[in-house]
Amino acid sequence: MSHLSENNPLYEALQQYPTPFYYYNGDQLADHIHSFQQMLHPKVQLHYALKANNNIAIASLLREWGCHIEIASLGELRLAEAAGYLPEEIIYTGPGKSEKELRTAIAHQIYCINIESLAELETIHQIATEYDCHVRVGIRVNPDGEGIGGSSIQMAGVARPFGIDESQLDQVFQRAAEMSHIQVIGIQVYAGTQIMDAEVLLSNFRYTLSLAAQLQARYPVQLDIVNLGGGFGVPYFSHERPLDIEYVMQQLTLLIDEYSVHLPHSSFIIESGRYLLAAAGIYVCQAQYTKVSKGEHFVIVDGGMHHHAGATFRGRRPRNNYPIEIIPRHHTSDTEQTQVTSIVGPLCTPDDCLFKNVELPVIHAGDYICILQSGAYGLTYSPIQFLGHATPAEVLYYKGKSYLIREQGDPEDLLLRQQNIVPSTEWTAVP
Amino acid sequence: MSHLSENNPLYEALQQYPTPFYYYNGDQLADHIHSFQQMLHPKVQLHYALKANNNIAIASLLREWGCHIEIASLGELRLAEAAGYLPEEIIYTGPGKSEKELRTAIAHQIYCINIESLAELETIHQIATEYDCHVRVGIRVNPDGEGIGGSSIQMAGVARPFGIDESQLDQVFQRAAEMSHIQVIGIQVYAGTQIMDAEVLLSNFRYTLSLAAQLQARYPVQLDIVNLGGGFGVPYFSHERPLDIEYVMQQLTLLIDEYSVHLPHSSFIIESGRYLLAAAGIYVCQAQYTKVSKGEHFVIVDGGMHHHAGATFRGRRPRNNYPIEIIPRHHTSDTEQTQVTSIVGPLCTPDDCLFKNVELPVIHAGDYICILQSGAYGLTYSPIQFLGHATPAEVLYYKGKSYLIREQGDPEDLLLRQQNIVPSTEWTAVP
Repeated sequence: MSHLSENNPLYEALQQYPTPFYYYNGDQLADHIHSFQQMLHPKVQLHYALKANNNIAIASLLREWGCHIEIASLGELRLAEAAGYLPEEIIYTGPGKSEKELRTAIAHQIYCINIESLAELETIHQIATEYDCHVRVGIRVNPDGEGIGGSSIQMAGVARPFGIDESQLDQVFQRAAEMSHIQVIGIQVYAGTQIMDAEVLLSNFRYTLSLAAQLQARYPVQLDIVNLGGGFGVPYFSHERPLDIEYVMQQLTLLIDEYSVHLPHSSFIIESGRYLLAAAGIYVCQAQYTKVSKGEHFVIVDGGMHHHAGATFRGRRPRNNYPIEIIPRHHTSDTEQTQVTSIVGPLCTPDDCLFKNVELPVIHAGDYICILQSGAYGLTYSPIQFLGHATPAEVLYYKGKSYLIREQGDPEDLLLRQQNIVPSTEWTAVP
Repeated sequence: MSHLSENNPLYEALQQYPTPFYYYNGDQLADHIHSFQQMLHPKVQLHYALKANNNIAIASLLREWGCHIEIASLGELRLAEAAGYLPEEIIYTGPGKSEKELRTAIAHQIYCINIESLAELETIHQIATEYDCHVRVGIRVNPDGEGIGGSSIQMAGVARPFGIDESQLDQVFQRAAEMSHIQVIGIQVYAGTQIMDAEVLLSNFRYTLSLAAQLQARYPVQLDIVNLGGGFGVPYFSHERPLDIEYVMQQLTLLIDEYSVHLPHSSFIIESGRYLLAAAGIYVCQAQYTKVSKGEHFVIVDGGMHHHAGATFRGRRPRNNYPIEIIPRHHTSDTEQTQVTSIVGPLCTPDDCLFKNVELPVIHAGDYICILQSGAYGLTYSPIQFLGHATPAEVLYYKGKSYLIREQGDPEDLLLRQQNIVPSTEWTAVP
């Protein structure tokens, strides 16, 4: 188990904000982003995949640090713009963009829309013609290939709703060339997520670069961007070994130099959400009750699956325990004593289990439970209305100061946009 | 596959409301609730488990039809009261009620708080003493038992965070008797959910009744309520056979008569959410794009896991397909032609799969996809902010009229309660 240093600013936040809350260390995040960027080939632009965490302050900081952004909906477009991203810093991906979403993205003149089907391309062209503007599109490719994939959550190389099969590219490039208001500026391949094996990642990148070089040679288009996707894995569980990111980046730089010869006009894009954010975030909750049932020890905390589904036994494919840190509320003497414990949330479902039978220091009511590696796919991935608890606050520590970047919710929030069909006063008590 | 009748009011709603939306047939719901209530022993009060669907209009109707309500949080208390429920119609269950939640529930003088640990009882007594009022509590019991459980989602009979082990009841009843401001008025047993086997359900009810009779004989308390829980299963998948509800209710009535001799002061409670609501709700989305990938046919619709996680391959334990109904937008002639199809949502994740390889009529862009059995654990169970799409509308049809009972969300909703740490204008474009 890791340990927070004694002067960790989290200790201060515990005094200041009611649990549960998400806590982000902006300094740690800045260091991590900068070191990641320094490893990138100068021709590569890093894009933040907003889906990983939709907090506006986080998105704004990433922009300040040089990231562009990848969005997936109208809501994310709105949030990206509110966070300060310029249209030319925004790319839009997703297999089911609605006509309304496409209209807005086109009207806002974002940098690139990654198309995922011929039908989508037709819709875009129709809107572009109507607006009489040129729309830059990237073609998301689902590669045929050997040497692609290798992820537990594979998103290409097999039958998928994402992207256009490699075998259908001829048709799409030909159709795009006929379209007066469409400019194909690149391709995207997103092979999978949570890849921990450096060679698998590199093999995917090599495939994409080679494919781009072939397409550049075959079609009369200028590939301004080759979007390599992402997939950089983050270790959550004790058996997982971290990705050797330095090695991946060194090799990727060599690969880009090698293929740049065949792709003279191209810049490159790396997308990342989880890898950028996971380690800088902590979900903090507090033990409310302890109990024993049939010999097993349970701690019931004030947060759970409704705030952090990814860390519970519902949202997660492997049913396993996240890294955890216990901060005793009172520094008692029995901290060296351990106990096999399960930690559960307040919801009335067995799925609301955060930790199952872990050996931990003895936990007392009032102690803080810190779930590490929680900066990505936390709140955004969770059924926040389930059982009607308030959404948690989000706190950002940055350059010596704490900021409340999301206020804790209110019971009233549940009623947002709801309408009763009769006023309450019309009801009478049932005898 | 079932078919909607030609004069189904849903057809009108399709013209009136933009997809995706939830659609509830209030007439069907009324019939279902009334026939359920008619089967109940006169001593049984039906409680609506609000967690199944937190729409205020639905909750209000259920109250009009004679239901009381079971809540699980402050947000649900607020919603129940806004929907017109009186304090004496509200019971509160949940393993992790916070002190703030308990304070509010006590101040609002709700009918009964079901306690789930000795520690919670102590907290309640402290608050009750401070407020100098009497608090009515039920004791949620985790039975030791043989003859309990039988659910795929078992919530009692094994080591669980829910309720108090039967073997610890002596201690709890003794402690409660010492408490000046606590009145134990009953017990609750909730054995599991989604039980399709009538005998399993009846065996659970029998266990609870027998336990209550023993406790009534053993302790000097008056058990005003014996809360039998629920667990009535709803068939979602084609291999599932509906529960024989009439048989269950007949037998339950006999059981209650049998045990009433030993429980002369007791009324009984049945809780239900899923069984009451599931069949009356439909999640309606629309085909946006069709495509073929490596020989497989995909339809990409405008709704998915962010609105109805339970129907996708993420939120669901058995990866299987819900009952579905396709409504062609234009009545074309090829409706008799079928195709093996997968239907997926707009999110960039393979989990956003609604139907996998189902033989369906050929679907065209614009056609409506109706997911049946969606009235319970739909929106409330879903990660509504994931990828930033708007929350869907909810539409209620009742006595010849359609009501918009939840407005469709807005891209702006994503920013609710968020705060940036610097105003956007301070940012400058990255070159």
